[in-house]
Amino acid sequence: MAGSTFGTLFRVTTWGESHGKGIGAVVDGVPAGIPINEEVIQRYLNRRRPGQNAFTTQRKEKDQVEILSGVFEGKTTGTPIALEVRNEDQHSHDYKEIAGYYRPGHADFTFDEKYGFRDYRGGGRSSGRETIGRVAAGAIACEFLKMLGISILTYSREIGGIRAETFEKDQIERNAFRLPDELAAEKVEAYLKEKMAECDSVGGIIECIVSGLPKGLGEPVFDKLDANLAKAMMSIGAVKGFEMGDGFAVARSCGSVNNDAFINKDGQIAKDTNHAGGVLGGMSDGSDLVMRIAVKPTPSIAKTQHTVMQDGTPLDVVIKGRHDPIIVPRAVVVVEAMAALVLTDALLINMSSRADRICEYYKK
Amino acid sequence: MAGSTFGTLFRVTTWGESHGKGIGAVVDGVPAGIPINEEVIQRYLNRRRPGQNAFTTQRKEKDQVEILSGVFEGKTTGTPIALEVRNEDQHSHDYKEIAGYYRPGHADFTFDEKYGFRDYRGGGRSSGRETIGRVAAGAIACEFLKMLGISILTYSREIGGIRAETFEKDQIERNAFRLPDELAAEKVEAYLKEKMAECDSVGGIIECIVSGLPKGLGEPVFDKLDANLAKAMMSIGAVKGFEMGDGFAVARSCGSVNNDAFINKDGQIAKDTNHAGGVLGGMSDGSDLVMRIAVKPTPSIAKTQHTVMQDGTPLDVVIKGRHDPIIVPRAVVVVEAMAALVLTDALLINMSSRADRICEYYKK
Amino acid sequence: MAGSTFGTLFRVTTWGESHGKGIGAVVDGVPAGIPINEEVIQRYLNRRRPGQNAFTTQRKEKDQVEILSGVFEGKTTGTPIALEVRNEDQHSHDYKEIAGYYRPGHADFTFDEKYGFRDYRGGGRSSGRETIGRVAAGAIACEFLKMLGISILTYSREIGGIRAETFEKDQIERNAFRLPDELAAEKVEAYLKEKMAECDSVGGIIECIVSGLPKGLGEPVFDKLDANLAKAMMSIGAVKGFEMGDGFAVARSCGSVNNDAFINKDGQIAKDTNHAGGVLGGMSDGSDLVMRIAVKPTPSIAKTQHTVMQDGTPLDVVIKGRHDPIIVPRAVVVVEAMAALVLTDALLINMSSRADRICEYYKK
Amino acid sequence: MAGSTFGTLFRVTTWGESHGKGIGAVVDGVPAGIPINEEVIQRYLNRRRPGQNAFTTQRKEKDQVEILSGVFEGKTTGTPIALEVRNEDQHSHDYKEIAGYYRPGHADFTFDEKYGFRDYRGGGRSSGRETIGRVAAGAIACEFLKMLGISILTYSREIGGIRAETFEKDQIERNAFRLPDELAAEKVEAYLKEKMAECDSVGGIIECIVSGLPKGLGEPVFDKLDANLAKAMMSIGAVKGFEMGDGFAVARSCGSVNNDAFINKDGQIAKDTNHAGGVLGGMSDGSDLVMRIAVKPTPSIAKTQHTVMQDGTPLDVVIKGRHDPIIVPRAVVVVEAMAALVLTDALLINMSSRADRICEYYKK
Repeated sequence: MAGSTFGTLFRVTTWGESHGKGIGAVVDGVPAGIPINEEVIQRYLNRRRPGQNAFTTQRKEKDQVEILSGVFEGKTTGTPIALEVRNEDQHSHDYKEIAGYYRPGHADFTFDEKYGFRDYRGGGRSSGRETIGRVAAGAIACEFLKMLGISILTYSREIGGIRAETFEKDQIERNAFRLPDELAAEKVEAYLKEKMAECDSVGGIIECIVSGLPKGLGEPVFDKLDANLAKAMMSIGAVKGFEMGDGFAVARSCGSVNNDAFINKDGQIAKDTNHAGGVLGGMSDGSDLVMRIAVKPTPSIAKTQHTVMQDGTPLDVVIKGRHDPIIVPRAVVVVEAMAALVLTDALLINMSSRADRICEYYKK
Repeated sequence: MAGSTFGTLFRVTTWGESHGKGIGAVVDGVPAGIPINEEVIQRYLNRRRPGQNAFTTQRKEKDQVEILSGVFEGKTTGTPIALEVRNEDQHSHDYKEIAGYYRPGHADFTFDEKYGFRDYRGGGRSSGRETIGRVAAGAIACEFLKMLGISILTYSREIGGIRAETFEKDQIERNAFRLPDELAAEKVEAYLKEKMAECDSVGGIIECIVSGLPKGLGEPVFDKLDANLAKAMMSIGAVKGFEMGDGFAVARSCGSVNNDAFINKDGQIAKDTNHAGGVLGGMSDGSDLVMRIAVKPTPSIAKTQHTVMQDGTPLDVVIKGRHDPIIVPRAVVVVEAMAALVLTDALLINMSSRADRICEYYKK
Repeated sequence: MAGSTFGTLFRVTTWGESHGKGIGAVVDGVPAGIPINEEVIQRYLNRRRPGQNAFTTQRKEKDQVEILSGVFEGKTTGTPIALEVRNEDQHSHDYKEIAGYYRPGHADFTFDEKYGFRDYRGGGRSSGRETIGRVAAGAIACEFLKMLGISILTYSREIGGIRAETFEKDQIERNAFRLPDELAAEKVEAYLKEKMAECDSVGGIIECIVSGLPKGLGEPVFDKLDANLAKAMMSIGAVKGFEMGDGFAVARSCGSVNNDAFINKDGQIAKDTNHAGGVLGGMSDGSDLVMRIAVKPTPSIAKTQHTVMQDGTPLDVVIKGRHDPIIVPRAVVVVEAMAALVLTDALLINMSSRADRICEYYKK
Repeated sequence: MAGSTFGTLFRVTTWGESHGKGIGAVVDGVPAGIPINEEVIQRYLNRRRPGQNAFTTQRKEKDQVEILSGVFEGKTTGTPIALEVRNEDQHSHDYKEIAGYYRPGHADFTFDEKYGFRDYRGGGRSSGRETIGRVAAGAIACEFLKMLGISILTYSREIGGIRAETFEKDQIERNAFRLPDELAAEKVEAYLKEKMAECDSVGGIIECIVSGLPKGLGEPVFDKLDANLAKAMMSIGAVKGFEMGDGFAVARSCGSVNNDAFINKDGQIAKDTNHAGGVLGGMSDGSDLVMRIAVKPTPSIAKTQHTVMQDGTPLDVVIKGRHDPIIVPRAVVVVEAMAALVLTDALLINMSSRADRICEYYKK
């Protein structure tokens, strides 16, 4: 079935498998007049690209994007933008061995169950490479958000149980883990080396903060802004949890503490605190959006694991190949992209909420 | 904008405000031939109805449902089912006072910002009464799931920081909190009385377990089963977090622990553990679905709070009216309904995944 | 499946059968601030109501609409508007006889084939009464279009082969056939009496003209304005053809004749002719939209017809009951409603087409 | 906005402009296990390719398709299929001249109005080349329909007022016009040469017949099978009218003639005639689907035409370049593709209509 499209007005459709000819996205509903070119999109892709340091897969691909439509003389034209990255480093021989058994923590088994067979050369659509399409599309959304003064800050909040205790924005892109805390980054490095020696992998938590958003974005009831963000984030492979504002901590709080008081701040109505994480009733309330995303340890590990063949025969396996011991730092870029897609769509949809403003729009 | 519809093939549209004439839902795409009548749906609604014990709002409404279409001689006909509950106990005079200021933790402010004005008589669409439509629609989905041998078990996992330590299924409907642990229920009762005396409210965590699901439900990439469940749950007012399987705990786990080994169990391929919570690559894997939902403390409290008037004038307020000190036990029923809606839709969509089965279906 | 919802941002869901408890619609995505009340909607419903003259069914129903949500103090609030008309004059005994056989020209057979059984009391969802929901929802859209200076004029162009040769706008609501030509109306009356004496029915053509539309509405490729109008009109029961501008006549024209020259009209770019019917490339071009809709003769006739029972036994039948010998005049109101739904949705969607205008919208 | 996606479960997204890098489609929701490869798709594309005879544009492009994803070892895998045709023969210098003025009968003006500017190198998304994506996607749908024994026959019914009077299926692909009548083809050839000498173009009517369809496809009310077909066909550039069965002729018919009697044909319930064109109440009734589509004369003609510059300055123009004097024969292939897309989607959606069959499906 059709699960490869995301969004209502700003709508992204992705395609491509890890070991096919390439990966891509078609972004439809892009407003005309956004400055965009391949260099701009490439900058976003480079941030998620593997092979950048000792803690990511050594698979070396340039992931070079090509724009095939929808951009003319450096600006979006309003028609669909086709983005494409050809696969280079396919190494499908690495994967032939895995064709016969089900890798623990992977989607091999469920793909077989759903479709009756699968492309056994690798993760296919459930490979991390699928996120190339998301990031390329998200780049366009990010550029659009910039025009409106909206910014998204995403970083690792915690890796392998080691939490960033300080916040230095400049640190984020300076260490291999995208942690805003230099000391935490050092601890993570030591811990990760230990785990890599054990042929194991670790997980972590990503935090995403959005500033400058107009009030009232998101739709009451089913299309709440936080509901759409939750879906966007949980649709990223390896994500197992999502929370908004204080998140799970609200379960142990009290109403008198958790409610954010409204105040008059320089003539503007604002909230004194932000336990809610920037949404009330599913609509943006003028405070920063704050969300956290839990990412599981990379399932591909070289440690011996128990599993079965397609016919049920048990066996012990060691997953070879080049895999990230931690995917959190690269997933940071994907989280940012997904947030941008949700917010752009919400901005477009929200324009139809008031008859007076619609009349004003058309009476020009 | 249109945010009141949920689902692709099995599609629910809800309507109605807390202080309007009524609340309802239209359920479209219901397969023909499901046994249903008003009594069946009423049983689900009665479980979420207020006024049943000392720990819910004393607002006394029968919430009597009427089926207006789509059911003939006790069975669904395939055409849309209109469900309606008329409001009885509106007491809008209770609310007149709140028209001028913004209640902390409520959507008053964001509604005003989005639409330019609002129905000041109460929570409107962001009232808990909105969930009547979800539960009525979910009742039909639940009855359909029963036909397929699928069951959903939902209960309070933790309230005010007090966690259920034992699991006795029969306990769930025996205490006011839908906790599966009698002792925990007693502790919660004591704690809640204390908080009520302080005019305060508490939050909690709901757990939802789905058994008997076919393998392969959910669509890769954006429409993953867990992504759609996350959206469904986060769209419930007061929900601030969602996790699947081990959820946020994966952030501190290792691949070798978090990966569930595949085993051969009586000739069937199964998972030895269920850290994943029943989904791999966004598709059901044959294990139980396990998810947890964080619910914030009721924002309406009688304790004095700081806020502002619509013009920004600061003031201190005490929210009067009849409010639940804890909404977790009633939200349990809403969580169950939303899970049922997502699963029913996934079951219908999944039928189109294999050409061989489609041919078989039509060749009869 | 879910086929009862129409529209993307301005979205209508209808429900109800001819012989159930009632008929209704939920209109979601209505911009806040449109003046609306039950009297306004009733005026539109009264125009489609049966029993108004000798040439419509004598079924006498008031079709009284009730607004259940989404309107507060005479204005839309932005939340879904539930509209409901309870059925009064059900006379289901009239229909018991038809339960066993398939009425020619009706959907009895296809309903049985699709769903395995059907509500045998009447046409169910394929009854003309289903259009009540469309007209009630369309009334809101029409009121919104008025705010923007957009008007829709709909009338019978031809009935039983007798064509309106002159056009007098005031005539339309003065004769039973909604013909803009008094003389043609007289001829139709005579012809129809003749056909009624023969227990037969006739068809006709409806014309719909939209003035005052902004340029650029509609989306290139699949969501062209004329494509969406075609779907809207063909979804009305009994409609068998749709054409835009010169329509089928283009098949016999030449490019040099059919192309509309652009001219400079008082400093504005306009078209000198309007063979295109107001759309170029699927987008409104500033000229009036002109479309025509072919309506088949009422299938329910009292003349003897051949058919079969559900088990295949042949028999001759005479359809009793109260049926319109011509449904064109009442369908005029439905065509107007459907046009209004499509245009309102197109207006809302179109607001997201230009980045510069979006920035302007949000920078206020 | 997002108008480049078609379908609900079987969903096609197209991209690409006439003078960009290429044209393509992503087909999502394709059932796994359909035999497909580039050769199969190329056969469909070759039928719509230009330059095949004296009566189409002499633009010579191979329109070579590449499958980039979703197919493995000759079968669809269930994941999205990306199809791509790179543009070769762009000749954008031919078009520079037209940048400044609005071609009559083209979408230049409406694109400018909607988006604020446009890709002035050619028709962009409103070029006939856009249909490459439709045909490539339709090829997959056609192959799927074959598996179910469903066939689509499409041909020119009438060109320049000359109608096919006889029907010989084998003739269709033997003449340049895809007419099923050799004599008519000869007349059309003579007429067309005359018109070409006058630098003019002509239109025509396409007929499409679908056989072997299961009963009950299509959804009552808004998603009627004929409504979706109407949208599909009217979304093809240059199409101005659509009719089902007797179409516009019903307007002059009587109920007693137009109603198709049900009969018992060899133990099966069937219709004695097929005025309805194979749909009753918007659902397939077991008879052949019969529809006709009106196509306007090619707007690009070398005859002098009046128009204006973007600033309103009037001028006379002669459209140079290589254009089809008649697009009907090539549009035949596009009509077939669009029919296949609608029917495939309807087949998938229809599987969810009966609870008993769903239970049977899952109980295996």
